Amino acid sequence: MLIIKHFKPSSLKRRMAYDYQLNIKSLLDSAVSRNPNTEVVYKDERYTLSQFRERVARLAQGLHDVGVRQGDVVAVIDWDTMRYMELYFAVPMMGATLHTVNVRYPPEVVLYTMKHADDSYVIVRDEFLPLIEKFKDAFSFVKGWIVYSDDGKARTSLEAHQYSDLLSGPKYDFPELPEETRATMFYTSGTTGMPKGVWFTHRQLVLHAQSVALAGRSDPLALTQRDVYMILVPMFHVHAWGMPYVAVTVGSKYVLPGKYEVPRILELIKREGVTYSAMVPTILYMILNHPGVKEYAQYLKGMRITIGGMALPRGLAAKAKEMGITTVGGYGLSETCPVLTIGVYNAELKDADEETKFRCSISAGTPVPLVELRVVDENMNDVPHDGKTVGEVVVRAPWLTKEYYKDPERTERLWRGGWLHTGDLATMDQYGYVTIVDRESDSIKSGGEFIPTLLLESAISECPGVGEVAVVGVPDQKWGQRPVAFVVKSGEVNERVIRDHLARLVEQGRIQKWWMPDRFVFVDSMPKTSTHKVDKKELRKMIQ
Amino acid sequence: MLIIKHFKPSSLKRRMAYDYQLNIKSLLDSAVSRNPNTEVVYKDERYTLSQFRERVARLAQGLHDVGVRQGDVVAVIDWDTMRYMELYFAVPMMGATLHTVNVRYPPEVVLYTMKHADDSYVIVRDEFLPLIEKFKDAFSFVKGWIVYSDDGKARTSLEAHQYSDLLSGPKYDFPELPEETRATMFYTSGTTGMPKGVWFTHRQLVLHAQSVALAGRSDPLALTQRDVYMILVPMFHVHAWGMPYVAVTVGSKYVLPGKYEVPRILELIKREGVTYSAMVPTILYMILNHPGVKEYAQYLKGMRITIGGMALPRGLAAKAKEMGITTVGGYGLSETCPVLTIGVYNAELKDADEETKFRCSISAGTPVPLVELRVVDENMNDVPHDGKTVGEVVVRAPWLTKEYYKDPERTERLWRGGWLHTGDLATMDQYGYVTIVDRESDSIKSGGEFIPTLLLESAISECPGVGEVAVVGVPDQKWGQRPVAFVVKSGEVNERVIRDHLARLVEQGRIQKWWMPDRFVFVDSMPKTSTHKVDKKELRKMIQ
Repeated sequence: MLIIKHFKPSSLKRRMAYDYQLNIKSLLDSAVSRNPNTEVVYKDERYTLSQFRERVARLAQGLHDVGVRQGDVVAVIDWDTMRYMELYFAVPMMGATLHTVNVRYPPEVVLYTMKHADDSYVIVRDEFLPLIEKFKDAFSFVKGWIVYSDDGKARTSLEAHQYSDLLSGPKYDFPELPEETRATMFYTSGTTGMPKGVWFTHRQLVLHAQSVALAGRSDPLALTQRDVYMILVPMFHVHAWGMPYVAVTVGSKYVLPGKYEVPRILELIKREGVTYSAMVPTILYMILNHPGVKEYAQYLKGMRITIGGMALPRGLAAKAKEMGITTVGGYGLSETCPVLTIGVYNAELKDADEETKFRCSISAGTPVPLVELRVVDENMNDVPHDGKTVGEVVVRAPWLTKEYYKDPERTERLWRGGWLHTGDLATMDQYGYVTIVDRESDSIKSGGEFIPTLLLESAISECPGVGEVAVVGVPDQKWGQRPVAFVVKSGEVNERVIRDHLARLVEQGRIQKWWMPDRFVFVDSMPKTSTHKVDKKELRKMIQ
Repeated sequence: MLIIKHFKPSSLKRRMAYDYQLNIKSLLDSAVSRNPNTEVVYKDERYTLSQFRERVARLAQGLHDVGVRQGDVVAVIDWDTMRYMELYFAVPMMGATLHTVNVRYPPEVVLYTMKHADDSYVIVRDEFLPLIEKFKDAFSFVKGWIVYSDDGKARTSLEAHQYSDLLSGPKYDFPELPEETRATMFYTSGTTGMPKGVWFTHRQLVLHAQSVALAGRSDPLALTQRDVYMILVPMFHVHAWGMPYVAVTVGSKYVLPGKYEVPRILELIKREGVTYSAMVPTILYMILNHPGVKEYAQYLKGMRITIGGMALPRGLAAKAKEMGITTVGGYGLSETCPVLTIGVYNAELKDADEETKFRCSISAGTPVPLVELRVVDENMNDVPHDGKTVGEVVVRAPWLTKEYYKDPERTERLWRGGWLHTGDLATMDQYGYVTIVDRESDSIKSGGEFIPTLLLESAISECPGVGEVAVVGVPDQKWGQRPVAFVVKSGEVNERVIRDHLARLVEQGRIQKWWMPDRFVFVDSMPKTSTHKVDKKELRKMIQ
């Protein structure tokens, strides 16, 4: 461009100063300068942010000493621990890529993703070692193993370095990385075939953290640096929705939960004074229905929770509200870093009544800053913003995956027409709030019309005695498809009660009569995917 | 980098979608999608954000029709009006550069800056037309004039287009601009010579808006989308500290004050329910000391105000506090877009007492997200964070000017060693709060030691009866320099009373005995610079 004709950078160093790069190092260093004593906590380990920064620098030197270089892919196999938190910063800040391995995949899929991602160094928690050792020969592509145990040294038959030894050296001198450097990658399951790899740059993670932090400060989340985060989205899953980077940006204390076990989660909420979390509905359901939950009522009261991964059922939100917990919906995909929308109040709701505010806050919400989101028909025309007309969500934003790794064909489909196609069906209302009504792949078309399964599930969830609920479509000669509802009871309930409940909602105009499920199937528990979402593929198999 | 070897963009359109550009268009469009009905107000004009977006598109088409093209520099000569607000968006979004002309400069300096900036189109408010018409021949470099009046058409002897005619056409189809495109430029006065030009890119303005919005949401500012902004920093001065872009990002209503006249400002605060402002101390001083201010007490109560441009004197902050107004310090330069620090509470102050919180909030504050700020000695070593040791503030951040326009020599000096040198002397305390104690050029060195004039002024400001105060150094045979204090009275006060007040602060250890000014000069008003700051050069002349 003509514009910079007078600007002649005299050196690289100077260029990097002018063209300040958005990278994880600048995010962390600026955070340390604002809030040096904010804590990061895991079990009995407790570091201030400046101590944490120092550990990250020592760890990076240790990783360098065992061979990790810029451009290498470093895989982690772990629960949500301090080790993981350290690696979230050390690996990208070195210019390497952090591959967060989904430990819930079957072994052959774990192996596939690690090979596909070109992992060269792997960090493994002791409890996952037996699995790795068993398939040792298949991992010949790995150049170095690093193992650890919460108790100190980990025992293994692998030729491996001990994580704790990596921290004993001097502090690494981190390079000034271009912001387009790849920082993280992970795999996401589709409805068919092997998982697809997505990756994100330093710039994307920084911009995502800033916009999510900005949105999170709005009512009713109203997050501040006084809040205490304990995120219950696995760190192997879409980098815990980016929350480790958000918390550091905001200056909040960050508590790492380890492996998710409800009694320990409740105990941590009490011990650390947790005020904020994020999770899929299933985890909230597990917490609220835990037999010991009453003892912790005073610590849960006042908590604010972002719910994503699946739509937030109204019944669950109402139950949380009774306990003084504010839940707020959110929406995004693995492909989108993930956050696109959050159910915080926008300026449109300034004078809205409580019911409208509640409805909006438990929807998917409005786009966070810098997200352009449209709900469109097949011809890419925006559908009316009437809260009724269904279309596909397409987006543009600074933090969308550029591609499916080594998969140009599916990349082309994802990005057709210059917009990322989410494959999610939604409505948008007059206030700008998005409600996801279905995954395209889970949708039910009955008599030529879509039944929005997520709205129907939300309606069923409000019936007393109903715990979890999932609706799937089954083939039908007359209508094409018809809905079947799976229900886990949380109290006294039967088919008649639910049908009466839905009939009342039909009268109120909240749902359509022809959405009424043909069958109700009561089950003890729902089949789940590796990320704790209800597995609708499994449910469909159960009734075929 | 190796990293993107698998990524082959198939078209420019697709590249722009992947590599989402941070530009004013994406800032505005994403804001409209979140808060379409947020208002922008000037006099009787009142637009929703989506109406405003439409006007911006029509205006851009009008500007295109009169000849404005990408890369052109478009100058504006106006007070803070709706026209200015429209141009803040339309001009950069077209790919042209908005030159915000400092109307307070003497005519020959205005002419110098416009010529130096390569202005090709100029938009002028009617009341500035006589000046332009008088020097018409000197403006031969201007390709097109656009004039307007609040009442409609403006009369002029220039061959000019009417602004209102520009809005009658269709909506402009804005290009997808690279984020490094220059968006704004303006001039800043130094201690010697002609003003220096600085400029900012789209990317810089977006990142600045996001980080400032993020910091502004912390206590005690606690800004939300429910707030009503009326910024009293002229739009020709460092683009009103970036606040028009911040307000749009946050979703707040934005009130344009026109020309600054205290009675009208108070009336607007009442009429529009203003809750937030930003200004230099002088303006706050003028508002609080206005004879009619008591009538507006109920509307001022609860307001939050960011004070920058000069240090916030403790006496002024205390007076505001008595009226229920929260003032918060901030710090930045024309060269830094401007915001570097804000006096919001960080996590360190969680358990601090009220006095510590007050002291921190009226300091310059802590760096906003993504700013790296150091206070260093001559060898670029950080000074101890003890709240006492004085050093120079140097910074790195994503929104610092790349250069002084057409001035490589001063650019080299500004950016020496890869850090932007502010020329401001400061301390940093244990909580990470910065206190600016002097401009290097205003500093007083007495007996080989610096007297921090801004701290001394703040101490004097606390004395009852003292209104504005400024301390300057005068040559002294014995000590090198000695301080002289200029005081504007706001009540009954004399030299003896101030000396007794300062003696008490010496006993309390707040100031040093040898800082005591040698002379006190009582004046009716302070000489001011074009941006309402006290003009210390003029004061020094008065006692030479």
